[in-house]
Amino acid sequence: VRGEMAAWARAVRGLLLDVSGVLYDSGGDGGVPIAGSVEAVRRIKASGLKLRFCTNETQATREKFVKKLQGMGFDISVTEVTAPAPAACRILKERSLRPHLLVHDALVPEFAEIDKANPNCVVIGDAAENFTYANLNEAFRVLIGMEKPVLISLGRGRYYKETDGLKLDVGAYMKALEYACDVQAEVVGKPAKMFFESALAEMGVPPQQAIMIGDDIVNDVGGAQRCGMRALQVRTGKYRPCDENHPHVKPDAYVNNLAEAVDIILQQL
Amino acid sequence: VRGEMAAWARAVRGLLLDVSGVLYDSGGDGGVPIAGSVEAVRRIKASGLKLRFCTNETQATREKFVKKLQGMGFDISVTEVTAPAPAACRILKERSLRPHLLVHDALVPEFAEIDKANPNCVVIGDAAENFTYANLNEAFRVLIGMEKPVLISLGRGRYYKETDGLKLDVGAYMKALEYACDVQAEVVGKPAKMFFESALAEMGVPPQQAIMIGDDIVNDVGGAQRCGMRALQVRTGKYRPCDENHPHVKPDAYVNNLAEAVDIILQQL
Repeated sequence: VRGEMAAWARAVRGLLLDVSGVLYDSGGDGGVPIAGSVEAVRRIKASGLKLRFCTNETQATREKFVKKLQGMGFDISVTEVTAPAPAACRILKERSLRPHLLVHDALVPEFAEIDKANPNCVVIGDAAENFTYANLNEAFRVLIGMEKPVLISLGRGRYYKETDGLKLDVGAYMKALEYACDVQAEVVGKPAKMFFESALAEMGVPPQQAIMIGDDIVNDVGGAQRCGMRALQVRTGKYRPCDENHPHVKPDAYVNNLAEAVDIILQQL
Repeated sequence: VRGEMAAWARAVRGLLLDVSGVLYDSGGDGGVPIAGSVEAVRRIKASGLKLRFCTNETQATREKFVKKLQGMGFDISVTEVTAPAPAACRILKERSLRPHLLVHDALVPEFAEIDKANPNCVVIGDAAENFTYANLNEAFRVLIGMEKPVLISLGRGRYYKETDGLKLDVGAYMKALEYACDVQAEVVGKPAKMFFESALAEMGVPPQQAIMIGDDIVNDVGGAQRCGMRALQVRTGKYRPCDENHPHVKPDAYVNNLAEAVDIILQQL
């Protein structure tokens, strides 16, 4: 791995880090940091590399999310985080869309300034416990009642790992509504190209000089590569050995965890 | 309509009737018969035509389901009903599959004789209130833990109408699990060809001499037509005016309800 990476890692000027499964494993108890990741973030910052946290997290406002990570010892601030909810709010405003929200309670404040009366679209996020039979039927009825249903999905992840096991992610519920209403969702968040591009713009680094590090073979690695970035998959979080035989996506390298990735990258500088 | 149908309705020897949305509208209170349908079933039986009820109902055992319909005044017995659960049981036995069940509580007795220890497949039906976040995660974990996930779905309906509104059907949840596990479900029930063929065999009528009457443009009408049957769509139940512009499926005729269909068919005999 080190040999292969040496050539192109030398050109790197910025890193995009996925958060859940790379920095920490989430869970009902708030989650636990992945060994070596707190120190790895500190070393990136000390190195002078640009850094951006690029997450599909939609179970909390960025404020709460960042506070949780700070509590685990991570050097992270709200302004360093690219997340789907603020990106969705920009789209809703631009297109005068009034959402019916099927999201986690803790995410609702991100939509505080958005008009939600008489909805003309549905926004779905990782609603977790809010993915009840009643709430799914309600979102479905709003959509099917529209002449041309508009469904905006905050990510399209299939599943993720929490401390008590794997959980279905927003993408599975997005597919349920897509099928029921014969509509295609507009995805905000990874792997949408626009989402990675806005994270790169915020760092001021072109894709050829950036590396994405994530645990999701499709949404992190595949998405970033389609934007012209190099991408590493960590063997933590939702990583599964069968990812290494993925039919379409091949990471530029595998690393055991974020700490190892940072070791290798910093040695090239 | 009457003119168009006259020619081919003359050859008819058997009718397949969908139940929910054709005989009655289901709902939390048990549902209500659709005007004219009780009498229409009686008239079919008096006519000497063969009759089979072909339903994707999976919210109750056939015994309970039939008892409910009898309570509304329908002349129907368990032996006249073709339903997905018994068909699934035959498949499970043939292939030595031990299911994890994600189904309605009231359907579980249909699987009484099936070994469910140490599951090697997931069977999903219209679980309704059992479609909880926890139950969906559990079914997902069973599937994703298999080397080659096997998902059997009792129908693939998108939604249906109950007295208090439209509800997501099993197909939506099937799609969620398909996507999360990157697997294709095996569908038992309409519109599977084998399911219609077994209903025809039970009647002893070839497809050319049978008419399917249903409210679902894809699962009733499209499915039956692919088996060589004629099919009518009723404008009751989940029927929506936009069905009449369906890109792939065109019923052999539209009728306002079952009573009208029976009027027209019996006039040709």
